[in-house]
Amino acid sequence: MKMKAFAMLGIGKTGWIEKDVPACGPLDAIVKPIAVSPCTSDIHTVWEGAIGERTDMILGHEAVGEVVEVGSLVRDLKPGDRVIVPAITPDWGSLEAQAGYSMHSGGMLAGWKFSNFKDGVFAEYFHVNEADANLALLPEGVDPAAAVMLSDMVPTGFHGVELADVQFGDSVCVIGIGPVGLMSVAGAALRGAGRLFAVGSRPNCVEAARNYGATDIINYREGDIVEQILEKTNGKGVDRVIIAGGDNDTFAQAVKMLKPGGRIGNVNYLGSGDFIQIPRLDWGCGMGHKTIAGGLMPGGRLRMEKLASLLETGRLDTSPLLTHRFNGFEHMEEALLLMKDKPRDLIKPVVIL
Amino acid sequence: MKMKAFAMLGIGKTGWIEKDVPACGPLDAIVKPIAVSPCTSDIHTVWEGAIGERTDMILGHEAVGEVVEVGSLVRDLKPGDRVIVPAITPDWGSLEAQAGYSMHSGGMLAGWKFSNFKDGVFAEYFHVNEADANLALLPEGVDPAAAVMLSDMVPTGFHGVELADVQFGDSVCVIGIGPVGLMSVAGAALRGAGRLFAVGSRPNCVEAARNYGATDIINYREGDIVEQILEKTNGKGVDRVIIAGGDNDTFAQAVKMLKPGGRIGNVNYLGSGDFIQIPRLDWGCGMGHKTIAGGLMPGGRLRMEKLASLLETGRLDTSPLLTHRFNGFEHMEEALLLMKDKPRDLIKPVVIL
Amino acid sequence: MKMKAFAMLGIGKTGWIEKDVPACGPLDAIVKPIAVSPCTSDIHTVWEGAIGERTDMILGHEAVGEVVEVGSLVRDLKPGDRVIVPAITPDWGSLEAQAGYSMHSGGMLAGWKFSNFKDGVFAEYFHVNEADANLALLPEGVDPAAAVMLSDMVPTGFHGVELADVQFGDSVCVIGIGPVGLMSVAGAALRGAGRLFAVGSRPNCVEAARNYGATDIINYREGDIVEQILEKTNGKGVDRVIIAGGDNDTFAQAVKMLKPGGRIGNVNYLGSGDFIQIPRLDWGCGMGHKTIAGGLMPGGRLRMEKLASLLETGRLDTSPLLTHRFNGFEHMEEALLLMKDKPRDLIKPVVIL
Amino acid sequence: MKMKAFAMLGIGKTGWIEKDVPACGPLDAIVKPIAVSPCTSDIHTVWEGAIGERTDMILGHEAVGEVVEVGSLVRDLKPGDRVIVPAITPDWGSLEAQAGYSMHSGGMLAGWKFSNFKDGVFAEYFHVNEADANLALLPEGVDPAAAVMLSDMVPTGFHGVELADVQFGDSVCVIGIGPVGLMSVAGAALRGAGRLFAVGSRPNCVEAARNYGATDIINYREGDIVEQILEKTNGKGVDRVIIAGGDNDTFAQAVKMLKPGGRIGNVNYLGSGDFIQIPRLDWGCGMGHKTIAGGLMPGGRLRMEKLASLLETGRLDTSPLLTHRFNGFEHMEEALLLMKDKPRDLIKPVVIL
Repeated sequence: MKMKAFAMLGIGKTGWIEKDVPACGPLDAIVKPIAVSPCTSDIHTVWEGAIGERTDMILGHEAVGEVVEVGSLVRDLKPGDRVIVPAITPDWGSLEAQAGYSMHSGGMLAGWKFSNFKDGVFAEYFHVNEADANLALLPEGVDPAAAVMLSDMVPTGFHGVELADVQFGDSVCVIGIGPVGLMSVAGAALRGAGRLFAVGSRPNCVEAARNYGATDIINYREGDIVEQILEKTNGKGVDRVIIAGGDNDTFAQAVKMLKPGGRIGNVNYLGSGDFIQIPRLDWGCGMGHKTIAGGLMPGGRLRMEKLASLLETGRLDTSPLLTHRFNGFEHMEEALLLMKDKPRDLIKPVVIL
Repeated sequence: MKMKAFAMLGIGKTGWIEKDVPACGPLDAIVKPIAVSPCTSDIHTVWEGAIGERTDMILGHEAVGEVVEVGSLVRDLKPGDRVIVPAITPDWGSLEAQAGYSMHSGGMLAGWKFSNFKDGVFAEYFHVNEADANLALLPEGVDPAAAVMLSDMVPTGFHGVELADVQFGDSVCVIGIGPVGLMSVAGAALRGAGRLFAVGSRPNCVEAARNYGATDIINYREGDIVEQILEKTNGKGVDRVIIAGGDNDTFAQAVKMLKPGGRIGNVNYLGSGDFIQIPRLDWGCGMGHKTIAGGLMPGGRLRMEKLASLLETGRLDTSPLLTHRFNGFEHMEEALLLMKDKPRDLIKPVVIL
Repeated sequence: MKMKAFAMLGIGKTGWIEKDVPACGPLDAIVKPIAVSPCTSDIHTVWEGAIGERTDMILGHEAVGEVVEVGSLVRDLKPGDRVIVPAITPDWGSLEAQAGYSMHSGGMLAGWKFSNFKDGVFAEYFHVNEADANLALLPEGVDPAAAVMLSDMVPTGFHGVELADVQFGDSVCVIGIGPVGLMSVAGAALRGAGRLFAVGSRPNCVEAARNYGATDIINYREGDIVEQILEKTNGKGVDRVIIAGGDNDTFAQAVKMLKPGGRIGNVNYLGSGDFIQIPRLDWGCGMGHKTIAGGLMPGGRLRMEKLASLLETGRLDTSPLLTHRFNGFEHMEEALLLMKDKPRDLIKPVVIL
Repeated sequence: MKMKAFAMLGIGKTGWIEKDVPACGPLDAIVKPIAVSPCTSDIHTVWEGAIGERTDMILGHEAVGEVVEVGSLVRDLKPGDRVIVPAITPDWGSLEAQAGYSMHSGGMLAGWKFSNFKDGVFAEYFHVNEADANLALLPEGVDPAAAVMLSDMVPTGFHGVELADVQFGDSVCVIGIGPVGLMSVAGAALRGAGRLFAVGSRPNCVEAARNYGATDIINYREGDIVEQILEKTNGKGVDRVIIAGGDNDTFAQAVKMLKPGGRIGNVNYLGSGDFIQIPRLDWGCGMGHKTIAGGLMPGGRLRMEKLASLLETGRLDTSPLLTHRFNGFEHMEEALLLMKDKPRDLIKPVVIL
């Protein structure tokens, strides 16, 4: 059976293609999307060749959908179930998952399968491995469009908060306030940060950052961000830095603004340069206890269920992220190009099917 | 020099006394209270003899005050500074503090000095050991009455959340919604709990619990609390339990409602019985990974500063706790007796001086 | 196809039976034992009815074996491979495993399947679920009899050390020096314990405990063990207690000998009584920061591989545990009854097939 | 009163000087050295100007000594006590210490006071701040020369193990096998490492590394160390890397040889270059969960007591480090120059007074 899909045709090229509907193995599910969202990673994949050449690979890794088929060993799901699909769908029996790092099952970053090692979700149907372990039921009353933000934006942003290990009353700086950074702001506030600096300049994102809990906005156009933060903290710096944007220079700034004993949580894709640089003196010549952690979001069913409960209970509202809503699969390209062109009023587009 | 103070005269007896103004050692400060609050612990101390006999011991361990004298080795404080005083004032050089348990410096629970090993804060002046390390400046613009809740209610309630190690989206049950339990509810919500059960029945506390983030109220008058929680969680139980009230039977219920892999954080003073009981089968015959942690709040300056930043930034509002406000030291006894008699509209009294 | 096996016929009764060779699902393996060992749990199962009535259930959960068949989805194993089989074989995709508690996959303690929810390993063939994720290759040069101790004795004893979170130079007490307790002694020494008290009295176990690193033997026949330990620690108690034997009274003693800020790691099956008791005053009335953790061993392939590397590198020698070696399946009953009768020279029997 | 001391006269110059015996504040002690050891840091200080210009600053931060005077507030020590002196002597009441990072009390790395912010221990007498909190009694029967290794070599080497968070059966690589690296090897083995790679080439250090538990020696003269380790681990890399030597290039190699989910523990002083470099692709473009931690050793009394118990119980033997023993203060310069010239048979010199 054939289906229609929106794909990367090659580096720098996208378009509609026809492909076979994917086959369902014994542990798997086939899912029909209800709502999907393009991601900056799709842009990196197509226009920067971030993961190398791909031909006719279906794009997309953020989706809420409806199960249409399940494999013979699947026990908890059935056709008709509406599910949240995480961007990361690990092999749960792998050694990496047993070690607590399921997102690296099968190799570094290899828990990321959609539009990387296999076709993505911008299709009439898509395939999910280990369905029982990777799909969470969409709770009653939760808007599918809002829930699509649980595929990647929320778990990635929140993972930055976890990596930085924010504690009650910590001073925190979030660098970057695109949709992931905004979720880091929301997550830091939700984990009890005290003073919460957000580094960014786009007016709609600045406003969202304030609404999500930022207490101070740091605009790099108004001076060096390290100096601004040191000035606002009596030269002490902050307890935690979450990096959700910027480049290698920004990374070095994160080390400078961090207190000894602090932690950096990086969830930013660092896409260029041979090396990321740690400023030696600011890092205490290797002995300053400024711990640097960076990692891909954890995926899987449990994570989706826990994050969905934050939507259900109203602790988190992802709808302010959704600045552009489209109805109909035919708007897929338009939505994707928004992420490429980044108009000033964009945070995140969603396509309802 | 003599001063007036409100004291425990002996078990079951309180009254006004005169005492010498305390002397100030080289590391110490003498503080004049601005706002104080009586605590259930004061009631345990006087009317239950919880810490044994005491004669003419000044009561009270919750205060905001003004520094009137500092010792010769004090560097960061000076007379006139307005400070938050934690209930727990550790000896920071002790082995216990070096091991990360400053509240037990000098012996189990011995970081609690006020109205325990020395005179408390219900006096014209009181003494603070290691002033630089134990006093935090009251931030500009923070109401001293609201800040008194940082001495004990907030750090104790929040420590329950820390001991239970609440993570994003966890289901949590807080047992007891007096002022400490309410701060556990607020702390659990502030740390990203999903569904948040609060066990209690007093209408004003129930309302406060909802406002602080509880999603479900469990009333023991409407049936066994374990059964109610299992019913609401499809028989699964909760990820975390914070015990901030109840007795030894309640403790056993906490074990029953907890999932394997979960944690109990107890901050409740368990005042009677030789033993606290863990139900054997529900604890997996010793192997269920239901970790039981219980501990006295961490005190000291850093903790106070971090919690104060939550008031400053508006993440936490303690003012709903303050149901009864008194002006003038002469209302000390009246305020204390409120904690003993617990009228239905009481959460917590405060006395402004 | 039929096979011979040694089984629990009912509570209090064991015997040889014939059963069908188990079927192999797509993720599974069928394994032929090379070396097996009976465990005290087998005794609890049969003679104490610890897990309830069972009829013709094959006993045994400690084995090294040879793979004879693998399912269609198994990738890393093939017939002929020699493997270490953990006593705990989780469902790795379960929510509990995703939460880090694979041993409770499917319900509290339910990662323990052999001779509990399905037939055990005292048979010509046995079944292993999720073979890739649960079986580790036996390294070249490692004695299968020594490696059988990795199924349960080593991971259980070592898990006590992990639960107690032993750090460099900590004072540690291990209660119970049967085979699991001896592995707790070895594990505590291997994790950097300083002074290491071992509580026991049987001469061969005492000698083994010293060889595994105990610095002091505490014999309950020579007085209260709490008093002995307090005397040897200047009244301070120990930093960590690992409970690998004893009963509910011993459990209470563990709390008494522990310092505030310490941790108890229980890996002992507590088989009787409605409640396990925490002495209230010694537990600081709920606030002494004496954390109580207890849990079933982690199983699975990664754990087996890591522990096997300790045998390979000579960090751990399990052979002193093997006081009784039998050759031939026909000695199965004899070996099992040794664990029931516990002659004075026994630590652990092994049967080579 | 005047005393004799061996000092840094200026960058590149050392010599004997006369200075006043230091004064003893109320919390302090004055100590007379019994055994001291020069450190590579002394070489960095004098000949590389690592901490900037200093004039007539007494060198040395590794000592065992005898208390000759204590301040009025000191309770646990008295003249005549023999004590182990940690290289790091924090201000325990500081905010940094309250946050768990006492080594950075008063600013990054500022817990290091001897021969940095004040005179060091190569003198007839030296000053110790917060004596009760920073000095540990030398246990009976422990050789003072062996115990001098507890001042810096052991806690620094072991801290690398802690930062890398070695767990049972982990594969570990220790880069650098000077005295600190050898203690990292010993510490990794003592914490349960499985396969333990040690990178170095000097024959006496290689032999010591093997004796301390290294299973494989990696010699950079025999090829790229990353390739050697990948080859020996089937291309997987190691679970943990401890960096105790090398330069910025070696640091980058550590990232390459580490598995996703692994940790780097750096205790190496990185003395040159503006930046330390993380290879971007090997770090998973920021998302590989290869955590990078680096920190100054924890000092203070408790740490010294815990490490001393490892000597007392025979878990650790530091005497193989002491390749060169001198008797008499007059050999101070000779001993120091050994650390500068590093003859092939040197690991560490000690001077007994």
